[in-house]
Amino acid sequence: MNTKLQWLRNKMASLDLQGLILTNPLNIRYLTNIEAEGILLLTRKENIYITDSRYIEYVHSILTLYDEIIVYNIQDISKEDYENFFMFCENVGFEEYDISYAQYKEYIRKYKINNFVETEHIIEKQRMIKDEEEIKNIEKACAITDECFKYILSYIKPGMAEKQIADEIEEYYKRRTDGLSFETIVASGENTSKPHAVPTNRKIQKEDIITIDMGCKVNGYCSDMTRTFFVGKIPEGVKPIYDLVLKDQKQSMLQYKDGASTRMLTKMVENDFKLYGYELIHSMGHGVGMEIHEAPYISHNSDTQLKENMVVTDEPGIYIPGKFGVRIEDTVQITKFGCISLTKSEKNYIII
Amino acid sequence: MNTKLQWLRNKMASLDLQGLILTNPLNIRYLTNIEAEGILLLTRKENIYITDSRYIEYVHSILTLYDEIIVYNIQDISKEDYENFFMFCENVGFEEYDISYAQYKEYIRKYKINNFVETEHIIEKQRMIKDEEEIKNIEKACAITDECFKYILSYIKPGMAEKQIADEIEEYYKRRTDGLSFETIVASGENTSKPHAVPTNRKIQKEDIITIDMGCKVNGYCSDMTRTFFVGKIPEGVKPIYDLVLKDQKQSMLQYKDGASTRMLTKMVENDFKLYGYELIHSMGHGVGMEIHEAPYISHNSDTQLKENMVVTDEPGIYIPGKFGVRIEDTVQITKFGCISLTKSEKNYIII
Repeated sequence: MNTKLQWLRNKMASLDLQGLILTNPLNIRYLTNIEAEGILLLTRKENIYITDSRYIEYVHSILTLYDEIIVYNIQDISKEDYENFFMFCENVGFEEYDISYAQYKEYIRKYKINNFVETEHIIEKQRMIKDEEEIKNIEKACAITDECFKYILSYIKPGMAEKQIADEIEEYYKRRTDGLSFETIVASGENTSKPHAVPTNRKIQKEDIITIDMGCKVNGYCSDMTRTFFVGKIPEGVKPIYDLVLKDQKQSMLQYKDGASTRMLTKMVENDFKLYGYELIHSMGHGVGMEIHEAPYISHNSDTQLKENMVVTDEPGIYIPGKFGVRIEDTVQITKFGCISLTKSEKNYIII
Repeated sequence: MNTKLQWLRNKMASLDLQGLILTNPLNIRYLTNIEAEGILLLTRKENIYITDSRYIEYVHSILTLYDEIIVYNIQDISKEDYENFFMFCENVGFEEYDISYAQYKEYIRKYKINNFVETEHIIEKQRMIKDEEEIKNIEKACAITDECFKYILSYIKPGMAEKQIADEIEEYYKRRTDGLSFETIVASGENTSKPHAVPTNRKIQKEDIITIDMGCKVNGYCSDMTRTFFVGKIPEGVKPIYDLVLKDQKQSMLQYKDGASTRMLTKMVENDFKLYGYELIHSMGHGVGMEIHEAPYISHNSDTQLKENMVVTDEPGIYIPGKFGVRIEDTVQITKFGCISLTKSEKNYIII
């Protein structure tokens, strides 16, 4: 059996689960490499993937004997089959965040489940720690993001609309990767004051501030990077805030390491911002993997520890409503004694 | 109050619901025009939209006084507020297909709900019947689809890959509409035998069969059209099957009208195919609206009646495994005494 499924089998034993129904497509892809519509059952003795005729051929082309997964066409499963899958299972786990209430009721009825047990993100928790191959994919996505950023700096000219720049980034990624990991943010001028700005028709000025938040996907794994930079020169009022954000982004990165508390990391930056009269209005970062935002979350609400081989962002920002904003973000890999920044683009006063 | 919300209020009264929590983003857009992350509460006296600071400004820009919707920032809602929303409500409805089991449990706790009642797609059922504005949007999406198809016929040349053609369609739509309503199918040669073929690197031959299934979105409303056509000439073996599919597509369209049974429509085509030794392996059609596939479904499993101002597809197809397939599909608007085809592209032997 593949190592991830073997891990999950052990986990199930420790939780006294004799069966498991997985419905989250990313968790299924994580465990099996299958990217299709279907569900994964772990019964007492078998691993079963149920899909429909559209995907059968594809699924067989992905799986290896080593996976030990039996594939069923949903059309061929009888009422009795359903009832037999979890026969003699006292507890069957399910993904309570990835099953609708209607499905929940249907599954209990169809599979005749005795005790349907919430599994509280067991797989998402495991997904926080990346293996070698996963890190390789994220590294590649980050490297292409660095190249794309370099390219886009040479591409941007005064008079271009934010939307045009966002489209160019999308085109760049589309030719080289699985595409965007999220809708690119290109904000200029006063639009930079909105952390989640959507690209508009505003045209880049001869002297301007621009924030770009961008990322792509490679083999299903994401990258995430933000830079705030300048056209012509750095406006007077912006410099002290840029310096403060950059200082805290670099200083916090020194603290990103195995064992660091996500709450403490956030508090540190929040407190430093407060000293100067500013607020950290969003979280300090988030895990990056198959999802652009995934556990662990680095904010004052979260209380987890960073662990070796987590991949997370470090992204403090300050926003002056109606005026401008500055955010600097890198994707980093946590190591035993520190972290490695996987996005490596310049961040000291970029002026184009 | 806007007419759709007023309709829903009346519906709630008839179902003895004193409150309602809506979580399906398309249903919320249908009722309010809001396209954001948030939920809609209908309490005894108020319509409340709960969102977060990212969307507050946008939501206010969309709503009018006429909507009678109060907007809350989720950050400003206290424990007591939640408990007060549905105070004195005996029955509160929810969308059981659009709420995870985890949310379901959370809502009961947070809102202190006495009786949380499944609403069985009440809004989706209403969405089946399109109003004037909705039909106008679908008409426009269909007209642009016709134009795009005309353009793509002039664009395709032997030697081009299926993927390149699909990309060109996407580009065409992107410049004129909200984009694709689903991933375009461009299948050629033996790939046409797969109803859900994904575009490959296969190159168009000098004599070839091509199936394109395509659609776009205008103001959130979809179009859907399929044509099978030929490069050079129609291969001998294909002609009788093309004729059969075309005959049944046209004949069934004559039966698409107010009052027609979706099961009977399907049976008619199935039986005719069987006469010639072929099978209808997918459904005859589906509703088209904010979703590319929505109720009503036209298949032998479904037993509903078509009604005036439903918009549905008529799409019989025959597939010879490993050889070729033919599908012809139009999006049509049901009227009292027949239907109007909203996609109008040629379908008699298209040869390029």
